[in-house]
Amino acid sequence: MNFTGAHILSISQFQRQDVEQIFSVADRMEPYALRKRVTRVLEGAILGNMFFEASTRTRVSFGSAFNLLGGEVRETAGFESSALVKGESLQDTARVLSGFSDVICMRHPQEGSVADFASASRVPVMNGGDGANEHPTQALLDLYTIGRELQAKGRTIDGLRIAMIGDLRHGRTVHSLSKLLSLYSNIQVMLISPKELALPGAIIEQMRSAGVTVTVSDELNNSIANVDIVYSTRIQEERFTSKAEADLYRGKFRLNQAIYTKHCEPNTVIMHPLPRDSRSDANELDSDLDNNPNLAIFRQTDNGLLIRMALFALVLDVVDKVDDFSREVHWYNSRQQ
Amino acid sequence: MNFTGAHILSISQFQRQDVEQIFSVADRMEPYALRKRVTRVLEGAILGNMFFEASTRTRVSFGSAFNLLGGEVRETAGFESSALVKGESLQDTARVLSGFSDVICMRHPQEGSVADFASASRVPVMNGGDGANEHPTQALLDLYTIGRELQAKGRTIDGLRIAMIGDLRHGRTVHSLSKLLSLYSNIQVMLISPKELALPGAIIEQMRSAGVTVTVSDELNNSIANVDIVYSTRIQEERFTSKAEADLYRGKFRLNQAIYTKHCEPNTVIMHPLPRDSRSDANELDSDLDNNPNLAIFRQTDNGLLIRMALFALVLDVVDKVDDFSREVHWYNSRQQ
Amino acid sequence: MNFTGAHILSISQFQRQDVEQIFSVADRMEPYALRKRVTRVLEGAILGNMFFEASTRTRVSFGSAFNLLGGEVRETAGFESSALVKGESLQDTARVLSGFSDVICMRHPQEGSVADFASASRVPVMNGGDGANEHPTQALLDLYTIGRELQAKGRTIDGLRIAMIGDLRHGRTVHSLSKLLSLYSNIQVMLISPKELALPGAIIEQMRSAGVTVTVSDELNNSIANVDIVYSTRIQEERFTSKAEADLYRGKFRLNQAIYTKHCEPNTVIMHPLPRDSRSDANELDSDLDNNPNLAIFRQTDNGLLIRMALFALVLDVVDKVDDFSREVHWYNSRQQ
Repeated sequence: MNFTGAHILSISQFQRQDVEQIFSVADRMEPYALRKRVTRVLEGAILGNMFFEASTRTRVSFGSAFNLLGGEVRETAGFESSALVKGESLQDTARVLSGFSDVICMRHPQEGSVADFASASRVPVMNGGDGANEHPTQALLDLYTIGRELQAKGRTIDGLRIAMIGDLRHGRTVHSLSKLLSLYSNIQVMLISPKELALPGAIIEQMRSAGVTVTVSDELNNSIANVDIVYSTRIQEERFTSKAEADLYRGKFRLNQAIYTKHCEPNTVIMHPLPRDSRSDANELDSDLDNNPNLAIFRQTDNGLLIRMALFALVLDVVDKVDDFSREVHWYNSRQQ
Repeated sequence: MNFTGAHILSISQFQRQDVEQIFSVADRMEPYALRKRVTRVLEGAILGNMFFEASTRTRVSFGSAFNLLGGEVRETAGFESSALVKGESLQDTARVLSGFSDVICMRHPQEGSVADFASASRVPVMNGGDGANEHPTQALLDLYTIGRELQAKGRTIDGLRIAMIGDLRHGRTVHSLSKLLSLYSNIQVMLISPKELALPGAIIEQMRSAGVTVTVSDELNNSIANVDIVYSTRIQEERFTSKAEADLYRGKFRLNQAIYTKHCEPNTVIMHPLPRDSRSDANELDSDLDNNPNLAIFRQTDNGLLIRMALFALVLDVVDKVDDFSREVHWYNSRQQ
Repeated sequence: MNFTGAHILSISQFQRQDVEQIFSVADRMEPYALRKRVTRVLEGAILGNMFFEASTRTRVSFGSAFNLLGGEVRETAGFESSALVKGESLQDTARVLSGFSDVICMRHPQEGSVADFASASRVPVMNGGDGANEHPTQALLDLYTIGRELQAKGRTIDGLRIAMIGDLRHGRTVHSLSKLLSLYSNIQVMLISPKELALPGAIIEQMRSAGVTVTVSDELNNSIANVDIVYSTRIQEERFTSKAEADLYRGKFRLNQAIYTKHCEPNTVIMHPLPRDSRSDANELDSDLDNNPNLAIFRQTDNGLLIRMALFALVLDVVDKVDDFSREVHWYNSRQQ
């Protein structure tokens, strides 16, 4: 696809070569994210960071990514807008707000809302999450992380063996990642969840017809034995008839260091879309894993910055100018100590 | 008036020559708003964008206008301030916050609050709306839009024929626009509203004594026949004893393409202060007008950016330096495709 | 201490020489705060201004301080974070958010939360206030203000005589200031409060063992007779069994111009951490003092900007580069009129 001026609404937009182009640009953003260099390539450009639903980390990640390219950020955090409350259409909102910026990132609780908004926007729009529907930058950062973790072992995404664990029915990150994986070869996916929270059949079918080997299980320990990546997600208590029932399931899908050591191959990478629940009766990823160097959950969020920088650079067509506007960082850099 | 260092609190501050000066500077801001060029004239300056009442679009418009001149924006969005809740006076708040910026834009639900705040501020203050009282940049952008629309037809504001429709009693935009129009010659104003929502007599008197020809009507179709501009506003349901009664009135003041075609002169310009209610039982401006090139409602919000840039440049005395600090834009510009 | 890369969590971190270093750097920041010059030394750096509790003025002060050094600010204002609500640990939040910025300022209602957050952060963290525990920049700006006010009279902090008035039991600003004063010589502290709201004994003991002369009183007029500084704080009504009881006490601790003239030495400096309650039945510092040139309350907030700039410059190790990246301001500067 031609990224220049494009809306980024759904992972369905991408062919494998598009994903690889994004990842290649993301790699080039790393010196800036690591504060080895600073670039002003987007000095004077404005991001409209329109979060009509609260989300501190995603909002700040998009905003920081734009700042790291030298641009300014105007934003809204949460549903303050009296205009939308008063019955203004999303198209009207889009036409007004798109007059104030060069690119917009939008999050909104309603499925399809971001595409609706984009249809009337006069600048490129990025989907920061529209309800249960899409959150394309999360799927991209997940796959990018998988690629980097494998690359460190001399491997590629082709040939990946991954276990996805937890509420596979409702987790949009898992749905999107499944679709992206279908673009690659020799993928083996192990789906581990309570039967009630199984991945929707349509997504399984789509993966299988793309050549992905899909196995389904409702048991954790043996299913994580032969994978490269364990991708854990939250068991969503609110989906069950009672907390007691949720706890029953939850107990079977918690990962901790003891289970990891006993059942996983050495150096199996552990991922999670975050936030993870730290309360002792709910945690799906125990904090005793925090010193495990294969815990990649914070590398995921770091990589999110690279992916978002890459998308901004691609959409605004400045990829090849980023370095030209750069210089060394001269302040204290905690990332290089 | 001398704009340098001045507070912008009310349209009553302006003589005709002041309005024309603002419009002339606004014209010069257009290449920056259209992203043909970028300027850093206010690099290092800080706008305190203090919105003590939610308003996404006005807040973002002021912030973007300042960013477009190269400045930074610190802001508050909504009534979070525990200080004001704890009984701090607006003057104390002003003296503290004005220590942190070079210019302040303030919105507050209470009439007179912005002038109160400005009286203690150590930097220039712009009124971003103080309850039912004033919203001077809205009135300026409305008149500026009228001027540009007429100019495109080889006309000037002098000689304007305008119909104002809807809740003329409570709409502060209509009040302010009426006052500004009194600065011009040969103005004909047609006021179209339910009798209960008529423009206050004092404003009508003020217009008439300034030489404006004012006609009053409670009927839409024939009243919009001979005007250059139709300025529509919302019928505010909450002002009536029942929704049923409001609907009765509302039905008589809705504009759609069919009515427009049948009753208006060709190329009559349609304006509205926005937001317009898109719900089918409430809309005063039908969405079937959206492809009508004379619908100027989004040109109004675009022009708001120019007006706010102009005011910042005037108040901070950098009008003649804007171009000196400018360069071409080198990223993708959707406005020039 | 070595400031480079350090967390700023508590005034207990500082020795006298550290405090003096901060004050010396703060002095050097003044031309930038007064807009005589502008510096871009932190151009490209990002402050994560994470306020998980509302506080307009402190949040804006930190943000403006960073902007004045040329940096960008990403922020959150209030407890919007669904992640923390969903049970994410502060350490996880810290590890994620610290990936997005070069330095973080954090406020959170829970005591100890900022230190907890800092322990997992990958960038330096500044405490913007953690509940009743610490608010180190407030204590620093208070002492810095005291030093400047005395310096104007050819005096130093050594030898200071100060009266602290009001709710000394709960006011964390008074606690922190008391500890900082213990680093200096020949300090005389007069503590004036209802017995129920006396300064905690441990803090009095700590001051006395550091050589501070501490006197305790529950009467205002005679106790303010021989001091250089009157530091007033709010009587916190909510700590009493009834408003009537609070009013009884409150009446005895209000300062106004008449009491000041009658009881204080000429040029006694009046301070207050703000906000002060302007409601007539609650005000501890009457507005008839507003024209008294010894009222230093707004100099305190102005100085806060200098202290925060100094801390950012120290922690990011750019103190000696600030001037190199500077130039004159060319816009209207209300502070120099």
